[in-house]
Amino acid sequence: MKLLLLTLVGAHLLSLNSGKAVYGRDAQKRTFQEIKEEIARYGDVAKAIIDLAVYGKAQNRSFERLALLVDTTGPRLSGSENLEKAIQIMYRNLKEDGLENVHLEQVKIPHWQRGEESALMLEPRVQKMAILGLGSSIGTPPEGIIAEVLVVTSFDELKRRAQEAKGKIVVYNQPFTNYSSTVRYRVRGAVEAAKVGALASLIRSVTPFSIYSPHTGIQEYQDGVPKIPTACITVEDAEMMSRMVSLGNKIVIQLKMEAKTYAEAYSFNTVAEIIGSKYPEQVVLVSGHLDSWDVGQGAMDDGGGVVISWEALSLIKDLGLHPKRTLRLVLWTAEEQGGIGAFQYYQSHKANISNYSLVMESDEGTFLPSGLEFTGSQKARDIMKEVMSLLKPINITQVFSDGEGTDINFWIQAGVPGASLRDDLGKYFAFHHSHGDTMSAMDPKQMNVAAAVWAVVSYVVADMEEMLPRS
Amino acid sequence: MKLLLLTLVGAHLLSLNSGKAVYGRDAQKRTFQEIKEEIARYGDVAKAIIDLAVYGKAQNRSFERLALLVDTTGPRLSGSENLEKAIQIMYRNLKEDGLENVHLEQVKIPHWQRGEESALMLEPRVQKMAILGLGSSIGTPPEGIIAEVLVVTSFDELKRRAQEAKGKIVVYNQPFTNYSSTVRYRVRGAVEAAKVGALASLIRSVTPFSIYSPHTGIQEYQDGVPKIPTACITVEDAEMMSRMVSLGNKIVIQLKMEAKTYAEAYSFNTVAEIIGSKYPEQVVLVSGHLDSWDVGQGAMDDGGGVVISWEALSLIKDLGLHPKRTLRLVLWTAEEQGGIGAFQYYQSHKANISNYSLVMESDEGTFLPSGLEFTGSQKARDIMKEVMSLLKPINITQVFSDGEGTDINFWIQAGVPGASLRDDLGKYFAFHHSHGDTMSAMDPKQMNVAAAVWAVVSYVVADMEEMLPRS
Repeated sequence: MKLLLLTLVGAHLLSLNSGKAVYGRDAQKRTFQEIKEEIARYGDVAKAIIDLAVYGKAQNRSFERLALLVDTTGPRLSGSENLEKAIQIMYRNLKEDGLENVHLEQVKIPHWQRGEESALMLEPRVQKMAILGLGSSIGTPPEGIIAEVLVVTSFDELKRRAQEAKGKIVVYNQPFTNYSSTVRYRVRGAVEAAKVGALASLIRSVTPFSIYSPHTGIQEYQDGVPKIPTACITVEDAEMMSRMVSLGNKIVIQLKMEAKTYAEAYSFNTVAEIIGSKYPEQVVLVSGHLDSWDVGQGAMDDGGGVVISWEALSLIKDLGLHPKRTLRLVLWTAEEQGGIGAFQYYQSHKANISNYSLVMESDEGTFLPSGLEFTGSQKARDIMKEVMSLLKPINITQVFSDGEGTDINFWIQAGVPGASLRDDLGKYFAFHHSHGDTMSAMDPKQMNVAAAVWAVVSYVVADMEEMLPRS
Repeated sequence: MKLLLLTLVGAHLLSLNSGKAVYGRDAQKRTFQEIKEEIARYGDVAKAIIDLAVYGKAQNRSFERLALLVDTTGPRLSGSENLEKAIQIMYRNLKEDGLENVHLEQVKIPHWQRGEESALMLEPRVQKMAILGLGSSIGTPPEGIIAEVLVVTSFDELKRRAQEAKGKIVVYNQPFTNYSSTVRYRVRGAVEAAKVGALASLIRSVTPFSIYSPHTGIQEYQDGVPKIPTACITVEDAEMMSRMVSLGNKIVIQLKMEAKTYAEAYSFNTVAEIIGSKYPEQVVLVSGHLDSWDVGQGAMDDGGGVVISWEALSLIKDLGLHPKRTLRLVLWTAEEQGGIGAFQYYQSHKANISNYSLVMESDEGTFLPSGLEFTGSQKARDIMKEVMSLLKPINITQVFSDGEGTDINFWIQAGVPGASLRDDLGKYFAFHHSHGDTMSAMDPKQMNVAAAVWAVVSYVVADMEEMLPRS
């Protein structure tokens, strides 16, 4: 999922919802009332999409497509055979589904493998500890690193106790507040520990709930700071080690990691379209990322986003609809490594940026949606509120802020309106980047509804007479 | 926790709550009204216990005692060094706490070890699968068992498809309904599979919620049926294999288990008392089991029960209370192997059964209590309702049925009133017998309340003028 929830919408405070302002980006000078009426005329189409996705023949199709994909491929780490197999499967699926302009766009991506890894507590008692090495981490020497542990609960505490860190393994037992605040320990834990002379860092998994479940994810080294091996441990072991040291125990751990970064590999963004009937050069982009971490099945992160984005085009095609602008599906590669596929795509296509009406990504699960996260001008937001009102039949009409997502941020930062699916995150972070991200976390009925929302929004924005207005 | 929830209370339908019936077992011929008044006089004592446990100096003591115990010992499997270490630690703790007649009673217990174990899916794709071998299972040959899988969702389906099972690994993907119904797949899965010629059985873990979490537990072979290796897999993998075979895939698994049963070992039930001031030969027994499975820390199952039972005596001692009858703490050994320590104890002490007023066990967690589970005569139940009304200050006054527990059933079946703590089981089975049964599942405040309930009930029943009436 998106690493950081940027907030770029603060500037748009002026409500222009008066009916007098001029809307539309292409100088047609229409009033908001006229646009509102245009959107209202999509009521029947929206209902048809909802009926097909939620109650009709396409019911459970998202779930079934996802299960077939992830059961067949397994997890799809950047640089892995599984990912390239998934790309080939999706290419065939999109072709067989009768979508247009199905093609692959090559991308150079990182190739990191965890290999075997283990952590063994040697003192005060012997216990195997569950770990997951972090993406881009180096490995240990083959014999491992055996060192005493320094447990801290924050970067501040680490700074205060910098003198104690040299030659040790730093264990972070930071409390979980929310993902976007707490994830910095995973991302920067190794760098901060290395700065004070630590040999390795072990970070409490970034999750509010654990059944002794380690979680992985990307971490970042910093130029000029020594690279040290780094992994996540479970909430349980982090809390236990905190208790142990508070009672004066000395903890010694043996950490072994074979993690290694290989030469960059070639991969692909996977693209399919329904070509616009009137403005084929103009684009509404819907997307999810096909890569995942190398544990679980990447069903939730982000197989679900991939499949409901595909499903948006399938539903529209099944209903024989031909939007005026091109509806483009992009399945990103190597998002988990920092939006690598998306960056390459932006570089290749940004010359055409004026033709992008809306960029959409689903990458926070496809559980029961509560609405749409949107970033764009107030005028565009007003329009999106009308579009979302078409989803009244399934009672999912809210428009939130923070439309950003790793793979669409390049476009949003350059001024293109952007949207993400907002859904029930109750279970999300318990499964996120863990062995538990599998089909068993998914619900077919919730996916039906997510697909309906995704299809209605993308179709209506692609078919309206005008592109969404920018700032 | 107790394996099966027996219901033995059905016969007692006649309410004798009129104030006219004769209560008390010792022929004092007191009316219920007199007993009610006697119990009401314990209001101040109950309040003092609650104040000490929940708000006073003993606050969080259960949690801290438990953390120290389980962080020091780790899991405590029957036959393991960890269990014997825990017994020695508890013996010292009880001595140091100033309890009376602290001693160990020897028991012969099973000694099974899982050793290394693994399951590798070879077809339709290669994937490591998380497993936990089941207690008493045999191992595989060193090279493992490689066989095709037959997936069934019930014993009925296995019978219908008996012809297909020969030479295969039977995978049970039974849905979870509730623990006591679903656990029979874990207990009898191997026997039923072996009857139809299977080489091994893999059983979906018995849990309503999973983060790719395997759960262990006891299983039982049957005389005359070949012994085959058996383990639990995750809900996720069971569901995935069901989906795979439903699409016509052939699944092949390599199962390796070093599991082995060794010669019986010696262990101990750990006993401490507050000796009765007036009827020292009469007993109220409070208990939990000190052994656990060999994963996690056995914090919830049943470290919490051990510690609140100890805490009941500590609280009473701290308040300088001297109940009329003996309050006896027993920490059972080898409960998870089928109540081995408890059976031995019953055999040794049953001659004295007429002196047991009440047997109590906490073995379903020490989360927020909702009341007391009780099995006994209607007269005894009426009395227990009055006792529980003393817990009005913390609003935990309900008396439920099903007081049974593995370690106290021998006594209950012989007519002794029995009680178990009833608490919030919302998270219980997600952690039960898994790597997740650790201190992180526990809550100090909830344990305070559980200890208060346990102390009030055990003290009042031990101090009342008469023993609880039997049928």
